[in-house]
Amino acid sequence: MLGQYRENYFMYPKLIENLLEQLSKLPGVGRRSAERMVFWLLGQKTQDVKALADAIVQSREGLCFCKLCHNLAEAEICLICASPSRDHKIICVVESPKDLLAIERTGSFRGIYYVLLGNISPADGRGPEDLHIPKLMSRIKQEAIEEVVIATDPDTEGEMTALYIGKELKPTGVKVSRIGLGIPVGSAVEYVDMSTLAMSLNSRRQVDF
Amino acid sequence: MLGQYRENYFMYPKLIENLLEQLSKLPGVGRRSAERMVFWLLGQKTQDVKALADAIVQSREGLCFCKLCHNLAEAEICLICASPSRDHKIICVVESPKDLLAIERTGSFRGIYYVLLGNISPADGRGPEDLHIPKLMSRIKQEAIEEVVIATDPDTEGEMTALYIGKELKPTGVKVSRIGLGIPVGSAVEYVDMSTLAMSLNSRRQVDF
Repeated sequence: MLGQYRENYFMYPKLIENLLEQLSKLPGVGRRSAERMVFWLLGQKTQDVKALADAIVQSREGLCFCKLCHNLAEAEICLICASPSRDHKIICVVESPKDLLAIERTGSFRGIYYVLLGNISPADGRGPEDLHIPKLMSRIKQEAIEEVVIATDPDTEGEMTALYIGKELKPTGVKVSRIGLGIPVGSAVEYVDMSTLAMSLNSRRQVDF
Repeated sequence: MLGQYRENYFMYPKLIENLLEQLSKLPGVGRRSAERMVFWLLGQKTQDVKALADAIVQSREGLCFCKLCHNLAEAEICLICASPSRDHKIICVVESPKDLLAIERTGSFRGIYYVLLGNISPADGRGPEDLHIPKLMSRIKQEAIEEVVIATDPDTEGEMTALYIGKELKPTGVKVSRIGLGIPVGSAVEYVDMSTLAMSLNSRRQVDF
């Protein structure tokens, strides 16, 4: 008897269908979770719902990537690049702002950062030209950089990226190090516990690519 | 060496922290999923992000509960209550609009609905007065209702609600039925597969509370 009255069948109002479609685009959100969110939202005060919507739009409009290091910033230059209390002679190269945050949380690094916003991945068609690496090179040549700490993920793409940067940096004579022992191979910088990450920063070793 | 530079430590910009806090309020979303969403949102076009924010606000502002049956509606009366092609003599009582949708998807019911927006749950302090049951009673007395199909969840609260409604309806002499065999006890109407739900609708039995 399934479907005998199917022609008249009621669906969610268009506003709900639209919201479900929009929410389902979010990473990790499927139709079921989107439905839970919609019914939760309908039960909230209008002002609370507006606060969520405003936070979404404002963060998208109010944030940019730092002109110097591509970290998240609310102004042209991020708080770290603009800080006089940081050591601007030591640059830590990371894949993403999340990795930068993970390192900052350890409180074990007082230099500045360079965020690649990605990694080298031939499988996904991402080469060195997509990673702002030439800009990093020219900074190293122009500024009095003493050390580059490469803190890309210890997985295939991250290691490939580290190797590429290491090779590029070799002619400049700058000291190059890779974050050290302690990070389990195959995992990601973002998820490592603080103590392991701190240890790996302190045990970094100069490498000869 | 953990935390030796902790005083200067960089955190997410306030716009991100605000958005993380807002997103973490959503059901099923923790700090980690919120971070994934934020970085995904930062990578989207501004117009797409606005479309999401607009969908959230519009659905909250543009939707209400039907004056007659408490189903989701974009106008005072929902599409089902307003439809002349439905059988207005048979009312199906459900706990939530999600249950209504689940029944509609089977295409096996051509009557109208009455959405309780909850169930009787003494443990949570919800009694019959919170469920618009008096309104249902007066409709049944005033309108030419022939049958009330009780489709509350077959769990403790749902059964209690069904029992209460059945007892209340007994003096009116209206035919009362409970959706039938096929739904596993302890589960929820919302999650049952369509065929089982269709079978349970077709095998509904008149009950004598």
